[in-house]
Amino acid sequence: QGTRDHHPAHVVLRDRLLATVISCFKRHGAAPLDTPVLELRETLVGQYGEGAKLIYELQDQGGELLALRYDLTVPFARYLAMNKVTNMKRYQVAKVYRRDNPATTRGRYREFYQCDFDIAGQFDPMIPDAECLKVMHEILSDLQLGDFIIKVNHRQVLNGVFAVCGIPESKFITMCSTVDKLDKMAWEEVRSEMVAEKELCPEAADLIGDYVRLQGGLELIEQLLQDPKLSQNKQAKEGLGDMKLLFEYLTLFGIAGKVRFDLSLARGLDYYTGVIYEAVLLQQERQPGEEPLGVGSVAGGGRYDGLVGMFDPKGRRVPCVGVSIGIERIFSILEQRLEASGEKIRATETQVLVATPHRHLLPARLRLISELWDAGIKAEMLYKKDPKLLKQLQYCENSGIPLAAIVGEQELAGGVVKLRDVRTRVEVRM
Amino acid sequence: QGTRDHHPAHVVLRDRLLATVISCFKRHGAAPLDTPVLELRETLVGQYGEGAKLIYELQDQGGELLALRYDLTVPFARYLAMNKVTNMKRYQVAKVYRRDNPATTRGRYREFYQCDFDIAGQFDPMIPDAECLKVMHEILSDLQLGDFIIKVNHRQVLNGVFAVCGIPESKFITMCSTVDKLDKMAWEEVRSEMVAEKELCPEAADLIGDYVRLQGGLELIEQLLQDPKLSQNKQAKEGLGDMKLLFEYLTLFGIAGKVRFDLSLARGLDYYTGVIYEAVLLQQERQPGEEPLGVGSVAGGGRYDGLVGMFDPKGRRVPCVGVSIGIERIFSILEQRLEASGEKIRATETQVLVATPHRHLLPARLRLISELWDAGIKAEMLYKKDPKLLKQLQYCENSGIPLAAIVGEQELAGGVVKLRDVRTRVEVRM
Repeated sequence: QGTRDHHPAHVVLRDRLLATVISCFKRHGAAPLDTPVLELRETLVGQYGEGAKLIYELQDQGGELLALRYDLTVPFARYLAMNKVTNMKRYQVAKVYRRDNPATTRGRYREFYQCDFDIAGQFDPMIPDAECLKVMHEILSDLQLGDFIIKVNHRQVLNGVFAVCGIPESKFITMCSTVDKLDKMAWEEVRSEMVAEKELCPEAADLIGDYVRLQGGLELIEQLLQDPKLSQNKQAKEGLGDMKLLFEYLTLFGIAGKVRFDLSLARGLDYYTGVIYEAVLLQQERQPGEEPLGVGSVAGGGRYDGLVGMFDPKGRRVPCVGVSIGIERIFSILEQRLEASGEKIRATETQVLVATPHRHLLPARLRLISELWDAGIKAEMLYKKDPKLLKQLQYCENSGIPLAAIVGEQELAGGVVKLRDVRTRVEVRM
Repeated sequence: QGTRDHHPAHVVLRDRLLATVISCFKRHGAAPLDTPVLELRETLVGQYGEGAKLIYELQDQGGELLALRYDLTVPFARYLAMNKVTNMKRYQVAKVYRRDNPATTRGRYREFYQCDFDIAGQFDPMIPDAECLKVMHEILSDLQLGDFIIKVNHRQVLNGVFAVCGIPESKFITMCSTVDKLDKMAWEEVRSEMVAEKELCPEAADLIGDYVRLQGGLELIEQLLQDPKLSQNKQAKEGLGDMKLLFEYLTLFGIAGKVRFDLSLARGLDYYTGVIYEAVLLQQERQPGEEPLGVGSVAGGGRYDGLVGMFDPKGRRVPCVGVSIGIERIFSILEQRLEASGEKIRATETQVLVATPHRHLLPARLRLISELWDAGIKAEMLYKKDPKLLKQLQYCENSGIPLAAIVGEQELAGGVVKLRDVRTRVEVRM
């Protein structure tokens, strides 16, 4: 349930998509890392907030208690701490596992790919953070998915907002997950949740609402820096300072136009400590004058400066920032688009079929195909002793093989091969 | 325990190795398939003989009972049956899981890669089987691992041998696993096991010993076809007929010289029904006149005509033959060889470092690197506002970046970049 076999045409399309993503990661100088699917159960527990119940656990068959990885970020942090690495730019493309309610039509599976790019190390502020946004921007542009927007926020700004609205610090993380629902729920509903479930007084909820519904660019940052309450809060001031620097760097990268400071973005995971971001594809077809509508998040990430320290016996911190590309969602979109276009994906790359026009020529086919393979040419033949020529040519047409190399008695005698272009039916002897 | 993180240089080397393997699979027209790491427990149970106790089982968290895949063959057979596919040439390169005693120095892990190539379908005898041997031969040649030999045997020949030695049919499979130990044990030990554990009479064991210690080529096949006892056994005759045809095709492929009919090869798995084979690397350095010594199996496979039928509700059979490349073992060998050569593997592919020679030039670096990324050039910069030029050039040397693109005030004013060859220190303005 919630898993699937990837058929050949599926894998071919997915590998194309992954190649685009990996090529961007490499362009930014990231090194590949591969961690096991299995992690110690204790490594994963406590990292995912409400997600913890979705972790797949292995049966206790003696030895260590194990679980399947839930994402690629926690294994990366565990790797850095275990190997005392304080400085690394790495990418990892691999499957992760969540016992979620599958919604396969919307691309939600229990086994799915993640494509992660992270920068670990103590650096000058916001330079690696800006690069992560540049990576997202490049990948979404390279994949030609249509228009998109990158929402950015800062956990310290959110914490500042909560503080000036009178929320106790112990509630900051749970408030984040409530605010995060503004993505899918109207403010009125989120407000009810705050009051009813999170026990906020209505006044505090309304105050929060005034902040978290703000969005904009550099001008909003300037406005909030002047805000009489926020400007008195240390965390908010630091966060807004970071945001200002970030927008400066994004402008130099030429991508500030696609980035929006959005105070409602909170992201569910507990471990973020600084900038957070999420890329959203905008609806393609819309009426003139209609507002572009988000069709869902396809990439996201943020800064997590505390995670590595949790795996180090001495608590040594390694600041990290990263981005994860939601390849399954993007894949669903590309697949739909491909279906609409009617383009057929070839599952194999075979260049030539070795064929014979009449009986008793299997040895000639075996000799010729062996020569082709040894020369690095992608070649197939039918596994029959005496296949009909028509069957062989039909096989080419069905599997998209462009050429047939035909050897009959005449060709054998002349030491030549008849090469036939399957589509045009033009034949040459060579 | 028994798993490992693959460090970047490790992944780079492994990906090179896998690229060679995959390129051979594609050359033979195989299509990629990707199945989940998770399989239903019932799919795996009963397929692996004594290996069953090594299956990783997931905890029962509600829903289906799951296990981690143990190999790629059973999932392939399950896929064919589930999708009613009767004809498919596929490859799969993926990790499999076994709760084995790890021997990491010899490349034995609990999580490890398998690279499988299989041909499913009803075809004329031995044509796909011969291609599997050709695939093994090509991969071992392409990887330049030194001399190797491919041992071949046939389950029907072995069954015939057991039958004419008076062994009841119910003991054939367990006899196979005993005979298979001739690889690592002397005949005397194997004989004791037959008599003591498998309750054979000494005479039957000796009779078996006379057969299973035979090895050779076409001449041995001819000799056994004349054998007064074997020639009377239907299974043996069929198996020997297959072997004769196989050698004929291998000769046409030009690889018969590396293939040896070896009656001691039995292979542990229960599901083989026809030809079985195993490739063994021969020891590199040896004294003149000394016999080449096998350093272990690096690839193997065989025909399994009954497996798909076990997953089909109506028992419909799809004959299959395949080969699996033992990439971890090969990787250990390549790694040792690389270490001996002192060659350093670059973990990244960065072509150019964007550098500045003095302070206050971060904007210039950000603008230039952004331009390079957008042009598809692999570029890095240090994440510091004002790094020293020496530090930047040292970074190039340490990580093998061949070029540095340097922008100072002078270059900015002139609208140029100074491109420095890190090794030769030659600089050009452009």
